Amino acid sequence: MAIVLGPNRYGKAETRLVRVHRDGDMHRLVDFTVGVALAGDLAATHLTGDNSGVLPTDTMKNTVYALAKQHGVDEPETFALLLARHFMKTQGRLTSARVSVESFGWDRLGPHSFRRRGEHTRTTAVTVTREATQVVSGVTGLVLLNTTASEFHGFVKDRYTTLPETTDRILATAVDARWRHLGDEADWGRSFQGAVDAMTGAFVNTYSYSLQQTLMAMGTMVLAGRPEIAEIRLALPNKHHYLVDLSPFGLDNDNEVFIAGDRPYGLIEGTVTRDDVPPADAQWYL
Amino acid sequence: MAIVLGPNRYGKAETRLVRVHRDGDMHRLVDFTVGVALAGDLAATHLTGDNSGVLPTDTMKNTVYALAKQHGVDEPETFALLLARHFMKTQGRLTSARVSVESFGWDRLGPHSFRRRGEHTRTTAVTVTREATQVVSGVTGLVLLNTTASEFHGFVKDRYTTLPETTDRILATAVDARWRHLGDEADWGRSFQGAVDAMTGAFVNTYSYSLQQTLMAMGTMVLAGRPEIAEIRLALPNKHHYLVDLSPFGLDNDNEVFIAGDRPYGLIEGTVTRDDVPPADAQWYL
Amino acid sequence: MAIVLGPNRYGKAETRLVRVHRDGDMHRLVDFTVGVALAGDLAATHLTGDNSGVLPTDTMKNTVYALAKQHGVDEPETFALLLARHFMKTQGRLTSARVSVESFGWDRLGPHSFRRRGEHTRTTAVTVTREATQVVSGVTGLVLLNTTASEFHGFVKDRYTTLPETTDRILATAVDARWRHLGDEADWGRSFQGAVDAMTGAFVNTYSYSLQQTLMAMGTMVLAGRPEIAEIRLALPNKHHYLVDLSPFGLDNDNEVFIAGDRPYGLIEGTVTRDDVPPADAQWYL
Amino acid sequence: MAIVLGPNRYGKAETRLVRVHRDGDMHRLVDFTVGVALAGDLAATHLTGDNSGVLPTDTMKNTVYALAKQHGVDEPETFALLLARHFMKTQGRLTSARVSVESFGWDRLGPHSFRRRGEHTRTTAVTVTREATQVVSGVTGLVLLNTTASEFHGFVKDRYTTLPETTDRILATAVDARWRHLGDEADWGRSFQGAVDAMTGAFVNTYSYSLQQTLMAMGTMVLAGRPEIAEIRLALPNKHHYLVDLSPFGLDNDNEVFIAGDRPYGLIEGTVTRDDVPPADAQWYL
Repeated sequence: MAIVLGPNRYGKAETRLVRVHRDGDMHRLVDFTVGVALAGDLAATHLTGDNSGVLPTDTMKNTVYALAKQHGVDEPETFALLLARHFMKTQGRLTSARVSVESFGWDRLGPHSFRRRGEHTRTTAVTVTREATQVVSGVTGLVLLNTTASEFHGFVKDRYTTLPETTDRILATAVDARWRHLGDEADWGRSFQGAVDAMTGAFVNTYSYSLQQTLMAMGTMVLAGRPEIAEIRLALPNKHHYLVDLSPFGLDNDNEVFIAGDRPYGLIEGTVTRDDVPPADAQWYL
Repeated sequence: MAIVLGPNRYGKAETRLVRVHRDGDMHRLVDFTVGVALAGDLAATHLTGDNSGVLPTDTMKNTVYALAKQHGVDEPETFALLLARHFMKTQGRLTSARVSVESFGWDRLGPHSFRRRGEHTRTTAVTVTREATQVVSGVTGLVLLNTTASEFHGFVKDRYTTLPETTDRILATAVDARWRHLGDEADWGRSFQGAVDAMTGAFVNTYSYSLQQTLMAMGTMVLAGRPEIAEIRLALPNKHHYLVDLSPFGLDNDNEVFIAGDRPYGLIEGTVTRDDVPPADAQWYL
Repeated sequence: MAIVLGPNRYGKAETRLVRVHRDGDMHRLVDFTVGVALAGDLAATHLTGDNSGVLPTDTMKNTVYALAKQHGVDEPETFALLLARHFMKTQGRLTSARVSVESFGWDRLGPHSFRRRGEHTRTTAVTVTREATQVVSGVTGLVLLNTTASEFHGFVKDRYTTLPETTDRILATAVDARWRHLGDEADWGRSFQGAVDAMTGAFVNTYSYSLQQTLMAMGTMVLAGRPEIAEIRLALPNKHHYLVDLSPFGLDNDNEVFIAGDRPYGLIEGTVTRDDVPPADAQWYL
Repeated sequence: MAIVLGPNRYGKAETRLVRVHRDGDMHRLVDFTVGVALAGDLAATHLTGDNSGVLPTDTMKNTVYALAKQHGVDEPETFALLLARHFMKTQGRLTSARVSVESFGWDRLGPHSFRRRGEHTRTTAVTVTREATQVVSGVTGLVLLNTTASEFHGFVKDRYTTLPETTDRILATAVDARWRHLGDEADWGRSFQGAVDAMTGAFVNTYSYSLQQTLMAMGTMVLAGRPEIAEIRLALPNKHHYLVDLSPFGLDNDNEVFIAGDRPYGLIEGTVTRDDVPPADAQWYL
């Protein structure tokens, strides 16, 4: 028996990049948080502290800024691909490079003026190995709510079940979704907006008997409308809105007054996929 | 010498209220976090634990929900006034009631479907005493950025000054503003939107030599356009964007690539007021 | 009628300072977050952007680090006094300097090894004007809990009261306390520890009929034991622990199983003071 | 081609449980946040909203509280096993049940009085399938710092490298570790404390040439001392402490004054494992 080094990687997390493109008087603004994680033969530094194969994480940060200057920055997928390929090309001992980006939206107020849009965050995670390239896009913090058209009944009752069945409730969630692209080229901005619109549309238009059903509808609409996407994973918290019991005060409550709960919350997680796509090349969800 | 009880108050903080108004098929949604703080003769409970003058904070929470049902909920100022006056009317020993509301915006997606808007939070704090009523409105989390039209130079240099002067920088802030109304009646929604638009417009249109100058312009525009407002307090963090030194890589950086800093940050705080208004009746900023 | 500039100040918030004192092989570690806020005649920068009276907030940050090197760092009160007096001495136009410090504790593991202690944060806020000096110390995040010896009954019942009376409940709070010193010299470390011990002891030893009663006991014990302290303000959230109704499962619950609630929470705020002390020189609680 | 449902699970996240054991006058306190995630044949609810195979997440929450009453609560691993096995036993269609627990420490102040200990959080995640049981324990938020005995040099330099080599720096991290047990029975409390002590000891006693080397030493010490543990995964942020350049002020800085950085940070992730253990039965790191 021996104690040995297993899977490992290292990198720089949460590098904050703001890139301004000055197209004459009309400026554009890109606001990213970038993460880099590299893997390869890193045994020496783990076992003896020999760093001759270690590119400093500080250099990764510098590279983010330098490439942002040299190549400009537009779609997060494009920038993540650029960075990941740069590391694979220049660092021969790497077996994989993973670059993740959170992209924050800003609304234009004028030629050089902006207001941060807070409604959701766009994400990407690109993994490049010697054999393959995988592009995952996603969204977090997209909070959706239906005040009706949601039921929940017919469920299992056991000794510990007290939840009443309902034919009318609030259904609310904060969408956390990631989808795997079939290739490494796409109109990334259009693809992202199409996926978000498909999920939003499915949430709005599904008369729901369970959040699982809504999840399936959301994933299906994305795949139906976006041929460039192989599969999508959704993690949907059920943001419970509890009907307040107003009967002690002689008042009814016909789905009008709710407590918005924080914890605990239901958490529905599921993947929707095409049945004819190749499996993922990397653990794309990590 | 004796040890005595000084100023005190008590209440319920962060009651989460979601109120749905079902106007036929077209639903409306109000999403508030409500705080209540009551003051009066509360010596007995402090000194002996005699609670005969103490309305439970649990009752305050119930009251938020019951009044939301009975009276409906629209503007946060109106609901805060309703609650504060209720407590003053029904609890004779109170000397003041303060109700604060955070209001979260939602965009309509359909007759009963909504997406949470994250761009800012609307606030109010109403204080009712036996003599007077004070309404304060505000906004937090309104993040604004100009990519140019901001300079900073001509400042004091002492032994510890290393900051270079600049004639072109990013200016960014997250507006935290509170303004005191002259009366307790207004078109609250219109007043709020007018104040936000005035602040945003002033930020966009001021060629800035200091964030203080921008603050003064923002406050002035609010008071110039909103006669119902007596004074406004602004706390503006200077969200520093540091120009990255790319010269080690043989690259220039003509205000294109920035690090968005988290900490530390400048903090500019100031009040803009009319010179002919009565002083505030309560410590309105608390 | 005119629109004019009212009270204002500016400074640098959240400068992160770690100071290592290398006393031979035995190192000491100080970990502070420092805030500086300066006030004086700042009309020019607000009105015209003339910065000739403005010390950059970047310089304030530099000063934190330079003085930490030159004078060493020990108690937060001492360092805050040093900084505030430095600014008042070197910047003639200032009318006040306020320096606040959050101090984070670390436990020693070896001569140069430490583990961060998370149990509370020590705070101070020093205000120096041309006339006076005010030292305020405090603590946040000190979470205390009694599983019994807490009752709550005999309270006001109105139309909206449903809370049952109880003779046995969990009482829990996260202490947020600030106390004003009579002078500007003390054994700050001993004073702080004495105040925390007095509050903790009072919480533990008070058989409580209301959190207000516990608050009063805590403040009284601090003032009784620490003659250098003039008054203390406590903000005590009532961190509710709700007894779970297990009767649907045929189980009793004799104060054994609780839901730890997040929101809403009661908030009890009160000052305990000596009746013979001079009033505060500045708005010491800001 | 068809669009189909892929892997999925559902459950209740962040159920807050406080369990008091009243052993006469001497009370014990357990403070957990519990997550439950169940998987099995859930196609019906996804495809048609037929909930006949769905145990409500509300029931999972009730079960946490009911079993806490009936069986008492001591070690998080024991409680997680109890819950997971309960769901597998009572819900025949399940293929796996995963229960995770965060356990918060409290220091005793008296027979029924406690102060929350903030120095780290103990975690567990138990996965029970029809074939196997997997117990993972862990710790988060354990922040360790050495003021010296850390070097970093001999690393790769490329076009974008500017980091100076150093033979003396602060090394600090917030340990996030998870380790897989070989079996499902152990003295869980002793095992946890042994693992934390081993990691802490290795951090303190390793003269470090890279954080990777320290990571390997920490994992090795855990496995060397705890035969019940098969492998351990560590994610160690490199909490950078930047030496302040005081030369503009005519001051040297011999590793005395540091900026504690927030973002970006290095992130070192690695697994240390025995080479003769069976592979994990489930994706134990999820």
